[in-house]
Amino acid sequence: MTNVRIVIAGFGNVGRGLVKLLLDKDELIERQHGLKIEVVGVGDSSGFVYRTDRPFTRDELSKMLQLPRGGLAKSGMGHVTHDICKVLDYTIPDFLIDLTPANYETGEPGLTYQLEALRRGIGVITANKAPLVLRFRELTGLAKRRRVPYGYRATVFGGVPIIDVLKHLAAHSIKKVEGILNATTNYILTRVFFDNYTLNDAIEEARKIGVMEANPALDLEGIDAAAKITIIANTLGLDIAFQDVERVGITALTEDYIQELRRNKKCVKLLAVLDVEKKKAKVAPIELDISDDLAQVKYLLNAVRIETDYNNILIKGVGGGPLETAVNVLSELIELAQRWLS
Amino acid sequence: MTNVRIVIAGFGNVGRGLVKLLLDKDELIERQHGLKIEVVGVGDSSGFVYRTDRPFTRDELSKMLQLPRGGLAKSGMGHVTHDICKVLDYTIPDFLIDLTPANYETGEPGLTYQLEALRRGIGVITANKAPLVLRFRELTGLAKRRRVPYGYRATVFGGVPIIDVLKHLAAHSIKKVEGILNATTNYILTRVFFDNYTLNDAIEEARKIGVMEANPALDLEGIDAAAKITIIANTLGLDIAFQDVERVGITALTEDYIQELRRNKKCVKLLAVLDVEKKKAKVAPIELDISDDLAQVKYLLNAVRIETDYNNILIKGVGGGPLETAVNVLSELIELAQRWLS
Repeated sequence: MTNVRIVIAGFGNVGRGLVKLLLDKDELIERQHGLKIEVVGVGDSSGFVYRTDRPFTRDELSKMLQLPRGGLAKSGMGHVTHDICKVLDYTIPDFLIDLTPANYETGEPGLTYQLEALRRGIGVITANKAPLVLRFRELTGLAKRRRVPYGYRATVFGGVPIIDVLKHLAAHSIKKVEGILNATTNYILTRVFFDNYTLNDAIEEARKIGVMEANPALDLEGIDAAAKITIIANTLGLDIAFQDVERVGITALTEDYIQELRRNKKCVKLLAVLDVEKKKAKVAPIELDISDDLAQVKYLLNAVRIETDYNNILIKGVGGGPLETAVNVLSELIELAQRWLS
Repeated sequence: MTNVRIVIAGFGNVGRGLVKLLLDKDELIERQHGLKIEVVGVGDSSGFVYRTDRPFTRDELSKMLQLPRGGLAKSGMGHVTHDICKVLDYTIPDFLIDLTPANYETGEPGLTYQLEALRRGIGVITANKAPLVLRFRELTGLAKRRRVPYGYRATVFGGVPIIDVLKHLAAHSIKKVEGILNATTNYILTRVFFDNYTLNDAIEEARKIGVMEANPALDLEGIDAAAKITIIANTLGLDIAFQDVERVGITALTEDYIQELRRNKKCVKLLAVLDVEKKKAKVAPIELDISDDLAQVKYLLNAVRIETDYNNILIKGVGGGPLETAVNVLSELIELAQRWLS
């Protein structure tokens, strides 16, 4: 049995999902993978709570799940600080799990958290895209120099390990990667082209059922998808910056245009496309025949199509819901901890 | 730069494909992955040729590609032996690549080759299903005890790293895996249900275009697919033996039945199905609506659907053609060599 000490930064939907999974699956993880995962610190916007004497108990973790947003600091559940360095130096975790919200301007607070962890030789697993989008080479390079694992599978296509699949194609020459990487816009466009909603009604519904980001531009203007294709491009060794991704959202689609497409058995998908040979990435509404594989990826599903010199691979599954993302984070934690610590 | 010495056992379509890829991609592999792959031995039914003083040159490898089947021993290209122990002890490779034909009765000659390699602390990469199907625990256990890499990605769904995807789902509870794992029968059934061929005509065509195994029962009776689902089951920790896989082939489908299905917009696919909870695997012709995702996987494509407690993932791509398999073997070699040797 190997003990794996973790600090969880970010206690929103994904953070809570991860704690819930740890409570549900601790026996399975011990039995099947020989790991005992111990939470020694958890942080939200109010600060980190952490323990140095012992990990949080099951009871304490269950109670955390009942706290309101931003309620950790006042919960009385351990030492409290805003200082990530203190948390890391006093708890000495094996992994920092960054589940803080993406800030594409500064990358903060995740960027600092990740850098401080890596500098100390602490492994990082992140579902937060922003630090990677802004500083891919620095973060992965630092992890490599310090010889610690850096896992970011959950940043793209939350539910499916697509980043790993790309890494497994080492002997292929990858020509093109294209995909439906944002579930919200895919939900909206499915409503429009397959259920005859107007664009406005579909957007309104997405907002109501809670699948839209607090800042709608992240979804509707393709920012989220652009962040993901940037991470894919850099994974493949291309030095493409976020601001170099050509980006068109879905809000400018007119009803006339939509009706014309419907008549011609076509639809629009918001595709993120990476042309590896030209080293160009874009996110744009693209017309597809409704018989196309990608057209048939509906509602909250995501999909990626990978074209190589020797294959043409399609992968489809549930995209980044909070629990799907959390289960991907936990899967990667198990895998990296086994390889690194046991 | 890390040198990676390999012995290739088996010089049929996949073995020749691998050598061709090594010749085509050696610069890419050096530049992108920092590896120089050196072939120090190659074997076919006539025996192994090997060199102890230096690896085979590009010229020699090119000449090997011109040899007739079973022509290595008489090629004058190095020392000759039938004894795998000599080859391994004299060449001291890092990896043995087993591309010999699958013999589901004995596992030979691959089984002995693999065991002798692992005992010596030599890594193994295999596209040969038979040894794994017969002795999964022994082979993977021996590799683990000797702490050497054992890669078998190319045994299932040649073109796509599905074995790795399954391993990446560590925190998921996998409920069911089902797939179209045999390209030949999928080609035949696509001809029958989508192009209105009779079953006999479709089988005849598959034979003519060279996609049928020398022993047709391997394809038509589901033996190949059963071997693959056995490997998937064991990868997931289930102790399912090849002979426990319930198996029905496609030769008993009658024209009446086929026509009735066509009328009802249905088709048959030869599916390999693993029910993880019941610990049961089967291969059988299964009726699907033609709108089903798996029904739409046509001709030489393969696909796998993975149902877990948190996702439902579909992966589709070209199955096991010789070059697709070889590129998967090479990808795995690059990945394992990087992790193990550099």
